[in-house]
Amino acid sequence: MATAQTPGLDTIKLAMAETNALFNHEVFLKRNFAALDDVYTADARILPPGSPMISGREAIRTFWSELVKSADARSVELVSDDVMHAGDGVVEIGHATLTMQGESAAVMTVKYVVYWRQEKNRWKWHVDIWNPNA
Amino acid sequence: MATAQTPGLDTIKLAMAETNALFNHEVFLKRNFAALDDVYTADARILPPGSPMISGREAIRTFWSELVKSADARSVELVSDDVMHAGDGVVEIGHATLTMQGESAAVMTVKYVVYWRQEKNRWKWHVDIWNPNA
Repeated sequence: MATAQTPGLDTIKLAMAETNALFNHEVFLKRNFAALDDVYTADARILPPGSPMISGREAIRTFWSELVKSADARSVELVSDDVMHAGDGVVEIGHATLTMQGESAAVMTVKYVVYWRQEKNRWKWHVDIWNPNA
Repeated sequence: MATAQTPGLDTIKLAMAETNALFNHEVFLKRNFAALDDVYTADARILPPGSPMISGREAIRTFWSELVKSADARSVELVSDDVMHAGDGVVEIGHATLTMQGESAAVMTVKYVVYWRQEKNRWKWHVDIWNPNA
């Protein structure tokens, strides 16, 4: 239940969980990379480990489609560890468990920070950075 | 000069540059790790590559003092690439050039996202995550 100090944060968290579910089910499981437009804002930026920053939807779609295919990734479970109001946006700290199959079958844990913004009534990732725990 | 759309952002950027200079000159050059209290908020969190998240000033001080000493780090130049108002805080995307000496002499570039908050009239790092470009 939302308190006076966190107006609407529970509602926002539900919307965030919807977006995160899209990333897992549509992008990773179904390999529907067009769904990334509902995950990232139009001018989003991602900062992947081992690569320079990547800007904009087209480049972000290329990044994830190549990574999912080359790693034979099957799922990514995202867990919010902290969600902080930041004006019209939200700063989230979380961690993700990435499951890959095929020759390089592995489970990998990364932690991340996402700066969320609303775009067309959907909460989306505007800045997305992560790194491995080990 | 600040515009109507970015009230005070130039002033905030100057304050951010002061904090970043502390990190370089005091922490890295002089190895004055007490200065980290002026860089990070009391309940800050850092998310370093290759390590779980680290919370709070004492643990953050331990992390940086061990890293600076073990890597024989001498300087870290921080460059802001984007600074976004986020309510009472700021979300910054930037990159850093880390110079190490001794046996493992090297120059390393990392990119980062910092969520800045004000604490006691100083702008400080509240959430700090980075990863290498290569």
